[in-house]
Amino acid sequence: MQLGRSTAGFAALMFAAAAWAQVAPQPPAPAGRGGGRGPQVVSPAVGEDRRVTFRILAPHAESVRLSAGDIPGNGQGAPLTKGENGVWEVVMGPIDPGAYRYNFNVDGVSTIDPRNPSISESNTNVWSLVYVPGADFMDTKEVPHGAVAAVTYWSTSLKRFRRMHIYTPPGYELGKEKLPVFYLLHGAGDCDEAWTSVGRAGFILDNLIAAKKAKPMIVVMPAGHTSTAGFGGGRGPGGQDEFVNDFVTDIMPYAESHYRVIADRAHRAIAGLSMGGSQTLNIAIPHLAKFAYVGVYSSGLIGAFGGGRGGTAAPAPQGPTWEEQHKAELDNAAAKKGLKLLWFSTGVDDRLITTTRATVDMLKKHGFDPVFKESPGAHTWINWRNYLNEFAPQLFQ
Amino acid sequence: MQLGRSTAGFAALMFAAAAWAQVAPQPPAPAGRGGGRGPQVVSPAVGEDRRVTFRILAPHAESVRLSAGDIPGNGQGAPLTKGENGVWEVVMGPIDPGAYRYNFNVDGVSTIDPRNPSISESNTNVWSLVYVPGADFMDTKEVPHGAVAAVTYWSTSLKRFRRMHIYTPPGYELGKEKLPVFYLLHGAGDCDEAWTSVGRAGFILDNLIAAKKAKPMIVVMPAGHTSTAGFGGGRGPGGQDEFVNDFVTDIMPYAESHYRVIADRAHRAIAGLSMGGSQTLNIAIPHLAKFAYVGVYSSGLIGAFGGGRGGTAAPAPQGPTWEEQHKAELDNAAAKKGLKLLWFSTGVDDRLITTTRATVDMLKKHGFDPVFKESPGAHTWINWRNYLNEFAPQLFQ
Repeated sequence: MQLGRSTAGFAALMFAAAAWAQVAPQPPAPAGRGGGRGPQVVSPAVGEDRRVTFRILAPHAESVRLSAGDIPGNGQGAPLTKGENGVWEVVMGPIDPGAYRYNFNVDGVSTIDPRNPSISESNTNVWSLVYVPGADFMDTKEVPHGAVAAVTYWSTSLKRFRRMHIYTPPGYELGKEKLPVFYLLHGAGDCDEAWTSVGRAGFILDNLIAAKKAKPMIVVMPAGHTSTAGFGGGRGPGGQDEFVNDFVTDIMPYAESHYRVIADRAHRAIAGLSMGGSQTLNIAIPHLAKFAYVGVYSSGLIGAFGGGRGGTAAPAPQGPTWEEQHKAELDNAAAKKGLKLLWFSTGVDDRLITTTRATVDMLKKHGFDPVFKESPGAHTWINWRNYLNEFAPQLFQ
Repeated sequence: MQLGRSTAGFAALMFAAAAWAQVAPQPPAPAGRGGGRGPQVVSPAVGEDRRVTFRILAPHAESVRLSAGDIPGNGQGAPLTKGENGVWEVVMGPIDPGAYRYNFNVDGVSTIDPRNPSISESNTNVWSLVYVPGADFMDTKEVPHGAVAAVTYWSTSLKRFRRMHIYTPPGYELGKEKLPVFYLLHGAGDCDEAWTSVGRAGFILDNLIAAKKAKPMIVVMPAGHTSTAGFGGGRGPGGQDEFVNDFVTDIMPYAESHYRVIADRAHRAIAGLSMGGSQTLNIAIPHLAKFAYVGVYSSGLIGAFGGGRGGTAAPAPQGPTWEEQHKAELDNAAAKKGLKLLWFSTGVDDRLITTTRATVDMLKKHGFDPVFKESPGAHTWINWRNYLNEFAPQLFQ
């Protein structure tokens, strides 16, 4: 439907803009927001040459650094330079197109960019987010867009409310058809929102679906951490992994009872990055009959081969090895039959490359036929977005 | 569906937790996150007595204040006290149950709480968010929950991509029925995400629907700012308000063509807070035949009566008044017939109370029959959540 345009009447409202600050907003604007409270700071500023200028107003600071591990050359945290107006600045790049998390470290205090409303969430902190356009597969383009919903569910296994993000493809909210479902797990530095913000998952799927490279699918992105302790699932009674329990007891049942999904093996995929790749294997191998497509990004069975330290020496795990614990499942020929894709990719500069290789070799030993692509790059979101863009088109074909 | 539980195999993975930090996450953890980098900081800590302790590690700071305008008694920004370990702390409250935005101001730099992953977005900045439980109507309860989706759409009037948030009630993703639609607008200190985070709109609707106090409905929460300049819609060619154009040309058509809505007047409502209340009137009055329910929270025609400054003297608006500009629409008796509710509420301590009163009086003069409830309190989210909880049950009955 269309409404006629309203051409009159906002003059008075707009007129009051200056007055507005006196009655709203509550709470007061933060320092650094400008508006007569110091210089107007623009940050981040993305140039057409893909150089990005980061700025922060910190007149009393002694040292400001940029925390942005994915930005090439910023491993150590580039120092910002203070201007006479108290605004610190650093120019990075040219930076390859993509989404980059960053924060400022001001005299030892980590702060997001006070001038940038775009953020990416993690398990115990929040990052500012800058997007450098120019990557055809993940740019926001004039194609039909899906929706990414934040969903609150009660975890019966964890006895508390949890959140997941669920991507629905263009047209789902109006449609009636059932779709395949893809469970996509995040890494240790992330939360259930990360694949949506820094991961660009929704836009990557929108573009793939518009180009008919990928089938329309529901993408379920759960929260892989069960505590703020920092590494995935803690262990519940009986030593069970809390996230695996949450996934099999609550997340899958919730998604498949609240969305129009084709709930069979041929229409169910699972993948994860880093920590989520290990979780993927710990969910999929014991329940192989449930999944036709399995993806492991920049990961493997972390720790299972003493590779958790990236190939440096690590003490042998206590008790039986992962392989010994899963021998029956690994050698179940019947369950392997319906497995259409077991896909690994890790960067050659990623310290988990040895873990990936060891995991792939072990699986081959047990009769699996994994695809393993060693890519350029390291343990960064740059690779994980590429892997999703390469993996999703192989699903449900 | 249920999967069998995975009882084995995470030992090795969990074993590697310590090793993990060496290979992931990228980017590095921010300062203040603990993990051997200074004291473990817990913030915010909500006590059972509803006292909230805010903490931040800032060993080199000279001054730290709490920016949290909605927290009673924090109007000026409570100072934090530095401990010997470099951790600054302040205890506030007891605080009434609810969601509260806050940031720290560290030596003049506004920073979110580095230890709190919960945030609330605004137009030009981001806030940390703390929830103090105990309010039955907005707590996260064991009731069926809807989903809140971030939706990207192309604004033909603004010629760029825009985002809105859309609440779908429990069962929508699986259902077939058409539902009424409620357009809910934010204030000048917010963005399209604010009603979801600090506004608790999804949880308020979940609870109302579970208690059968409100009808299941779609709630569309668009972005009311069209620039970072700070106040709502800028003015496009011909002086048209950009947000009103975006709303009538793109937002309503998008929502009503992508979701199962009953697209008639009797099943369409609109409301907004503060700036969004003025926008509501500037959309609804010229298009009254499209809306059966109209709500104005803590607002009115801001500036139209020189009341934009909260009752202090303001120069008269140039040109014809809002009333003069809208005389034909205000006196259209036929259009009034299908208007089932015109509802205003503003706090007696809100500086916009005079604007609300003047707007209500003007509308009565033209034959409208508005409901106007003067509530306790001021221009804060405390009132806006209450107003939504009071307004939504009156819709579509």
